[in-house]
Amino acid sequence: MSPEPVPEIVAGPVLDTDPAFALHRGGKIETGITVPLRDASDLSLAYTPGVARVCTAIAAQPRLADDYTWRGNAVAVITDGSAVLGLGNIGPAAAMPVMEGKALLFKHFGGVDAMPLCLNCSSVDDLVETVVRLAPSFGGINLEDISAPRCFDVERRLQERLDIPVFHDDQHGTAIVVLAALRNAARLTGRGLGDLRVVVSGAGAAGVAVTRLLLDAGIGDIAVGDRNGMIDVSRADLTPVKQALAADTNKAHITGDLADALEGADVFLGLSAGKVPELAVARMAKDALIFAMANPEPEVDMDVAHRYGRVVATGRSDHPNQINNVLAFPGVFRGALDVRARRITEGMKLAAADALAAVVGDDLAESCVIPSPFDPRVAPAVAEAVAETARAEGIARR
Amino acid sequence: MSPEPVPEIVAGPVLDTDPAFALHRGGKIETGITVPLRDASDLSLAYTPGVARVCTAIAAQPRLADDYTWRGNAVAVITDGSAVLGLGNIGPAAAMPVMEGKALLFKHFGGVDAMPLCLNCSSVDDLVETVVRLAPSFGGINLEDISAPRCFDVERRLQERLDIPVFHDDQHGTAIVVLAALRNAARLTGRGLGDLRVVVSGAGAAGVAVTRLLLDAGIGDIAVGDRNGMIDVSRADLTPVKQALAADTNKAHITGDLADALEGADVFLGLSAGKVPELAVARMAKDALIFAMANPEPEVDMDVAHRYGRVVATGRSDHPNQINNVLAFPGVFRGALDVRARRITEGMKLAAADALAAVVGDDLAESCVIPSPFDPRVAPAVAEAVAETARAEGIARR
Repeated sequence: MSPEPVPEIVAGPVLDTDPAFALHRGGKIETGITVPLRDASDLSLAYTPGVARVCTAIAAQPRLADDYTWRGNAVAVITDGSAVLGLGNIGPAAAMPVMEGKALLFKHFGGVDAMPLCLNCSSVDDLVETVVRLAPSFGGINLEDISAPRCFDVERRLQERLDIPVFHDDQHGTAIVVLAALRNAARLTGRGLGDLRVVVSGAGAAGVAVTRLLLDAGIGDIAVGDRNGMIDVSRADLTPVKQALAADTNKAHITGDLADALEGADVFLGLSAGKVPELAVARMAKDALIFAMANPEPEVDMDVAHRYGRVVATGRSDHPNQINNVLAFPGVFRGALDVRARRITEGMKLAAADALAAVVGDDLAESCVIPSPFDPRVAPAVAEAVAETARAEGIARR
Repeated sequence: MSPEPVPEIVAGPVLDTDPAFALHRGGKIETGITVPLRDASDLSLAYTPGVARVCTAIAAQPRLADDYTWRGNAVAVITDGSAVLGLGNIGPAAAMPVMEGKALLFKHFGGVDAMPLCLNCSSVDDLVETVVRLAPSFGGINLEDISAPRCFDVERRLQERLDIPVFHDDQHGTAIVVLAALRNAARLTGRGLGDLRVVVSGAGAAGVAVTRLLLDAGIGDIAVGDRNGMIDVSRADLTPVKQALAADTNKAHITGDLADALEGADVFLGLSAGKVPELAVARMAKDALIFAMANPEPEVDMDVAHRYGRVVATGRSDHPNQINNVLAFPGVFRGALDVRARRITEGMKLAAADALAAVVGDDLAESCVIPSPFDPRVAPAVAEAVAETARAEGIARR
């Protein structure tokens, strides 16, 4: 895919006055050295001739690479730049600030050494092949900002071919955090997940993955809407991914638009863009849970959301209950790397969501169904849950 | 190419007692963070929503990526594991300790952020395509330990397709350091480069590149030997690379073996393996310069070398005059990145060698024709020469 044309901006004045540019100057990450390098003796261990003995050992016993290189703690943050934030297909070079940001969050919150790799790939085949070729250098692959429905194919094919965790964060990171918040919101309002009827707006990467994880967690019923209306088996315009989704969702076979689906619904999950009118929100059930996660503009105006919703969450840092992927991915990879998990399973994601929800504990309130991204308990709790589940499921290598 | 079988080693006892393994445990490099991340305000600049403005600017003006991401200081250290040190084709995973070592030397000596990438590629085509796809993330490409003659093709094709420096260190790093040492050794013995008749043992990556750079530097005559004897236009078994070399070398059309070529020669450059017998060394001219650079066993025994040679250099850190690539590559990339050079030219390599030779200055002696790898003047001197030459040649972008 060629990048879409982007309107030229007048760089000068913006670059001089915007603090985001000042902060990004020279980049946000660097490489660091973890061994001494004072003299020829140090050099002879870290490099030739000493290094040759380590290479020979790994050639004989490949798994030693996890212990005697940085691979065991290294994750590739990979994109093709085809669906960057809300900006669309801006191409690999322009995606770098996001991937670098991801790498810094990986390090800061999870102690994971992540490398941003923005790939100039024109097809799903190329992207898959390239990541397979890169895999010997990494203990895990974090896919990022790859457009749907291509992202589903890319992830599935990589998971089939690689023996390390492959995790598309836009899908599963979001799903874990949404499930955690929803679990707490249900608890707060005296309901179980099985009691909830959920309406999801958006059937892209996040919409599909959130729906799948909520179903696995035991949500009562979910209906998903895309730009052509509610997804149902009766529709003839569905991609294979949406056909599969239709088979497992929308028990009531609602065929209208979002407003029809919201009639009596307990939960709204906004994972798209576009506004939901007040009249539609007003038709939701009592104690409605409204997660309007589009950035920067939530799908439901905040005054409307608070008028009809008992719990309101957004994707924004300036409102309570921020649904932020950084609550999940650093701990998920930390836990997976710690036990050398072969992959990230549905069970590990469910355990991550439970652990994340539990961090809130007694602070549970309408304005606190999910911890702050800066709560230091989050990543260790998620990591431990992920690692324990991997061990219990027999996919840990240590 | 599939990795060659490597004899299984008994890991336990070795791993416990060898200090190289202790040092390599957990790897030798890490990622670091260069921006503050204390609170939601920091997060909103380094990540969403602030990061979106930087992405948009780069999409409109791609060259901004050099200033507002880490790309401008980031170099990929790339191998396919096909010719690692003297170990041969041990594959990508086992090559990682060397590439990581390279990355740490890049950082320590040149302040360059280098990422080790060991690629699972089975053909030259795959390797070239993969590096092209990776290129948007990097300001330069350092190729490493790729087998000859494939390495020549890989480098040439990448240089044709990319607008950033592509530098196969086994070739050009070695060539720069050898030229610098040879220039000083000639000066010490009152000769110019044009006065010297040189014999090179080895027509692999290093042998070919050293010969090319020495010819460009004005060496009088060079004859190159491979395992089938001296390379000459009369031979029918030459690869295209060696045919081209034959056309530019061996003026006297020596067709025998290395011993024949060494008769009256001023310089021996060992860039292969295998021993040169004393009788052959004894036939060299007065004030012979003997660079026996094979590791760990130099091609000429040290007592023999010192008996017949005025200046002796090796690849070893425990002898004087160590020909070590680390004297070149950190400064070469530092200089190239500093001025955003589009490539590394022959002129930049010659300037790097001159600058490296000049660091020795008044310390010039038989046991000091090249600086120590730990001389802090080396990388800045090389970087400045490379940057100035790039500017003078009009290939600098700033």
